[in-house]
Amino acid sequence: MNLLETTLARITPLDADLLQQTQLRLDNKTKPPGSLGRLEEFARRVVAISGKAVPDLAKKVIFTFAGDHGVVEEGVSAFPKEVTPQMVFNFLRGGAGVNVLARHAGAEVRVVDVGVDFDFEDCPGLLHKKVARGTRNLAKGPAMTRDEALAALAVGIELAEQCSRDGVGLVGTGEMGIGNTTPSSAIIAAIGGFSPEQVTHRGTGINDQALQIKITAIKKGLELNRPDPTDPLDVLIKVGGLEIAAIAGLVLGCAANRIPVVVDGFISTAGALIASELHPQVREYLFAAHESVEVGHRFMLERIGARPMLALDLRLGEGTGAALAMHLIEAGVKILLEMATFEQAGVTGKQE
Amino acid sequence: MNLLETTLARITPLDADLLQQTQLRLDNKTKPPGSLGRLEEFARRVVAISGKAVPDLAKKVIFTFAGDHGVVEEGVSAFPKEVTPQMVFNFLRGGAGVNVLARHAGAEVRVVDVGVDFDFEDCPGLLHKKVARGTRNLAKGPAMTRDEALAALAVGIELAEQCSRDGVGLVGTGEMGIGNTTPSSAIIAAIGGFSPEQVTHRGTGINDQALQIKITAIKKGLELNRPDPTDPLDVLIKVGGLEIAAIAGLVLGCAANRIPVVVDGFISTAGALIASELHPQVREYLFAAHESVEVGHRFMLERIGARPMLALDLRLGEGTGAALAMHLIEAGVKILLEMATFEQAGVTGKQE
Repeated sequence: MNLLETTLARITPLDADLLQQTQLRLDNKTKPPGSLGRLEEFARRVVAISGKAVPDLAKKVIFTFAGDHGVVEEGVSAFPKEVTPQMVFNFLRGGAGVNVLARHAGAEVRVVDVGVDFDFEDCPGLLHKKVARGTRNLAKGPAMTRDEALAALAVGIELAEQCSRDGVGLVGTGEMGIGNTTPSSAIIAAIGGFSPEQVTHRGTGINDQALQIKITAIKKGLELNRPDPTDPLDVLIKVGGLEIAAIAGLVLGCAANRIPVVVDGFISTAGALIASELHPQVREYLFAAHESVEVGHRFMLERIGARPMLALDLRLGEGTGAALAMHLIEAGVKILLEMATFEQAGVTGKQE
Repeated sequence: MNLLETTLARITPLDADLLQQTQLRLDNKTKPPGSLGRLEEFARRVVAISGKAVPDLAKKVIFTFAGDHGVVEEGVSAFPKEVTPQMVFNFLRGGAGVNVLARHAGAEVRVVDVGVDFDFEDCPGLLHKKVARGTRNLAKGPAMTRDEALAALAVGIELAEQCSRDGVGLVGTGEMGIGNTTPSSAIIAAIGGFSPEQVTHRGTGINDQALQIKITAIKKGLELNRPDPTDPLDVLIKVGGLEIAAIAGLVLGCAANRIPVVVDGFISTAGALIASELHPQVREYLFAAHESVEVGHRFMLERIGARPMLALDLRLGEGTGAALAMHLIEAGVKILLEMATFEQAGVTGKQE
């Protein structure tokens, strides 16, 4: 078996008893039963995912995977391709949105070059995991080879393994790649059977003309490559991206290693969708941070069965929404660990 | 003029130039324009509210106002009335939900007795601002006298003044009062012209029979007292609560003192609704934390014109949602203050 297959084989359903026991602990806290809503869900699931009655979320890491996209030559983005490496340097200096929000959440940002069309050479702080210098143009043929897709998936899986060794309690996904809303729209169109018009939006802010070009590029890509909707790996190879593959691998690796993983916005969710199509139980391990302005995001979340927690109209990516959501997941765990029980506080319980 | 009138006279619209200048600062940050959505709105508004180009949110305070309700004798709650003072002691010991989430947000909780039917005597940490030992039963007559309502409003206004003197950068509202979803439903029914059935829900978790009792109590209260929907003070007096009045005062006081204020759930929003009916510009100073499970909350938020940021199915109150939302508002301000500009980072901007 290759790494992908062994990882998939390690993913198991959550322990129903542990979920129930944790809810009983929550029901003893000084509040009406269930009144902290989804914070209680977060606490239950983090306990059941980690297998720890007292989960430790002190170490939190957001991975920002960078990759380039051949489809940019079609004119699908409002920003030129050189912005991908420029933003990588911005991440490494701590000046980007994800850096600010990760610091605010007490999380570390790890920046991964999985497919940037730029030679970073000896660049301190960068995780050098380049599989290729970007994908090929999906409007003209498959975006990747099978080996490239598997290698990028392995990058994500191995980073999750490293998190397990490092004692990381909560992982977040993020990405940077000029043009990467195009493969993300193509992925949900292919898997969900949607038309490109239904799931394609303005990315970083393209005008009406560029939006038409983008929709046409996705149409050409789907017609030419004919990705098999029942084979998520085939979809990833033909219309995906290297950073999307790495995110899929990270999500699978987190599930296999029992680490809760927060999924950021549209592009990250494309990766999580590939992962959850590869193994249905993956969804039990993931948390959807927010609902993006990108119209295709809602369809992805519905298919995964994940409900976003933030209504902030975000569309930056990088892991920014994941950073914000980490605070909420940690809040749920603190409710479980720090709130007084009815008995401790001498408070009278609900009258039946 | 009394304190309420002088406070209302001090509330002014936000400075449109300052809002625009702040958006220009945000547009120079290394991200597509507007891509951080409502975080950018939070940053703009906090600058314009405070009048400070570099807002300081280090000091954050959540006020948890406690009060009792005469209408409890009708059987509208799943918890007995003695839980109100019991929870006050829980707040003071730091064991309640709001304490856990405020610590998580770096905020202080200030607990205020504005109307609990209990003699706390010399109770360290409690702010003694008792106006009365609870309201009277709104199903049998006015909940308060005019003087009681004005005194409770003054409690909130004076606490906001104190925050201004203390250099508090962000205030949150919260409450505790067994039975207080009943006056909150009555307030939105009276002001919005809704039937009690449309805006009444299960509070801390009552069954179908108790829900009918609650609806009947609100109906009786509205029919008997005939609150004038165009006179928010009359509504407050006849079907409100002392902690709801104090929250209304706090919101008005924050607006008058240019302090951004985060409004928690259903009961807090009832207070904010009274405030925004008293002065329409109040809405520019407030932030809605979340949308509660309580069905009437949505109608209140629509009337105020505030959009919640969290989708967490909360229904605890105390200020728990406000504490979570503080992290998001602070995130917006940090984006403004900490992110690199395109020039600083050497990143190419959007191509038109």
